[in-house]
Amino acid sequence: MPTFHPTALALALAACLLASLPALADQAKPKPSLTPKEILAASKPAEWRTPDPDNLLVMTLAGGHRVLIELAPDFTPLHAANIRTLAHEHYFDGLAIIRVQDNFVTQWGDPYDDDNADRSKMKPLGTAKKTLPPEFTRPLDPKLAFTRLPDGDVYAPEVGFSGGFPVARDPASKEEWITHCYGTVGVARDVGPTTGNGNSLYAIIGQAPRGLDRNLAVAGRVIDGMEYLSALPRGTGPLGFYEKAEQRTPIVSVRLAADLPPAERPKVEVLRTDSASFARLVEAKRNRRDAFYTRPAGKIDLCSISVPTRDPAEAK
Amino acid sequence: MPTFHPTALALALAACLLASLPALADQAKPKPSLTPKEILAASKPAEWRTPDPDNLLVMTLAGGHRVLIELAPDFTPLHAANIRTLAHEHYFDGLAIIRVQDNFVTQWGDPYDDDNADRSKMKPLGTAKKTLPPEFTRPLDPKLAFTRLPDGDVYAPEVGFSGGFPVARDPASKEEWITHCYGTVGVARDVGPTTGNGNSLYAIIGQAPRGLDRNLAVAGRVIDGMEYLSALPRGTGPLGFYEKAEQRTPIVSVRLAADLPPAERPKVEVLRTDSASFARLVEAKRNRRDAFYTRPAGKIDLCSISVPTRDPAEAK
Repeated sequence: MPTFHPTALALALAACLLASLPALADQAKPKPSLTPKEILAASKPAEWRTPDPDNLLVMTLAGGHRVLIELAPDFTPLHAANIRTLAHEHYFDGLAIIRVQDNFVTQWGDPYDDDNADRSKMKPLGTAKKTLPPEFTRPLDPKLAFTRLPDGDVYAPEVGFSGGFPVARDPASKEEWITHCYGTVGVARDVGPTTGNGNSLYAIIGQAPRGLDRNLAVAGRVIDGMEYLSALPRGTGPLGFYEKAEQRTPIVSVRLAADLPPAERPKVEVLRTDSASFARLVEAKRNRRDAFYTRPAGKIDLCSISVPTRDPAEAK
Repeated sequence: MPTFHPTALALALAACLLASLPALADQAKPKPSLTPKEILAASKPAEWRTPDPDNLLVMTLAGGHRVLIELAPDFTPLHAANIRTLAHEHYFDGLAIIRVQDNFVTQWGDPYDDDNADRSKMKPLGTAKKTLPPEFTRPLDPKLAFTRLPDGDVYAPEVGFSGGFPVARDPASKEEWITHCYGTVGVARDVGPTTGNGNSLYAIIGQAPRGLDRNLAVAGRVIDGMEYLSALPRGTGPLGFYEKAEQRTPIVSVRLAADLPPAERPKVEVLRTDSASFARLVEAKRNRRDAFYTRPAGKIDLCSISVPTRDPAEAK
């Protein structure tokens, strides 16, 4: 069967390579690099973190499919607070996925929040704020963790990871922001920059639309269940909106993990993006060296890097 | 309804901007840029091309869903020839989509072409060649059209479009190759570089996996029906392979347009990537200026550009 990632050779050489991986790029005779699976298997417990339950959204879709979203209060604190309020008050329960535009976004919210619908039927926001300041970028803070990538970026002066999120930095404007990569969750809004409040969110399901960066507030990132948002039928209306109610995927509930009894909270860990194992993953992806990849790229784009998650039980 | 691309303001200013768009990026007071729809509406008939029926594959999936793939003989002539032979002899009819890996690829071919299957049941290749030279890159040819993009690339010295395909060039190695972008169709293979023959193909359905560039032969690009490959349920086996036969989407038929009666050939036109309208589309995407986008990116990544197609009837 033609496949992309044969691992037999890499497996055989895994042990002897673990310590010396970063040096491989300079070796005259390339040796197989570890596979992501092997690097993760060798990771240490301290290299993994458990998302703060106060920043973890649990969205349950029809069919019981679970999507986990980690909020990013370091970058969009006011939006995180408002989304927590919406979740506390069960705002999203009974709403739906209203839009799936191929190679762009899956968006969810209130089907009646539409120019062509009866807005009088919209679900009340409860105690959540109706509008919020943009929070499209934040002041650059040297104290925020930043694992910079070595290969540059088409759009920004500096890119890397901060607390698990793909981030861009501009030393000139002294701003930083989470970038729109696959799985990034943003705050949909109308034309005005202050018209978003978190009651309608979107996840990126295609090529990173980096042109959205600094024009929308990024609420966070899907850390599990992305396939339940990316594999939905595309909407046939303008911008991928569904044209018929029955085409929409119902949202059963959206809960903040902190609002769930500890026993019911999702068991999930995320690899720290400032860990040695994450650095090994990045280097292994920059320079794949196995029997399949004869010409390692020697480069990696920010949005081509996935941050691993796991069920802690798998690590036992 | 929070959306991303309000067009009212752009519509109002469309006419006066058409001629002056390229200068907009330098203007102190940004004005709305044309929307892609407006730029295409103003395009000239000569800016569109009809794909050569000898390079156009028509894949019909279960449900009658049609996927159009344009082959790239300028870059992979031996693979194009072999795939034409496979289509001539109806090789793909009755095979299936065997693999969908989220944020990576959808792959189709013979379910029995698998280490865990009974290879004796594999469909014969007929007169098609069993193996082909790699064709992972081609010698750089100054005579091949190349519309270079202005903003650079993380992976290659030069990127742009050639005959409708996203292409990278390396003046140092004097090579060029089609890049792995959303919709790119590649030739799956086993470990050895000459093990591919076109009997199993894959389409990119997520963030551009540019690390595949120069390691696999690119057969062409999906020019229509991409949503029928990208929205399929993800496979639950290793690498996204489907674990049960009933999970696979059957391929009804794959025909070369040239093998169909003229009346049955798909009516499709592709915007020339060396046209003025395409240049306007690229510039409008680099510097979106409307009431929604307050901070134009000023940059564009190769794989963020979609090449427009249309039904000629729409142009009437």
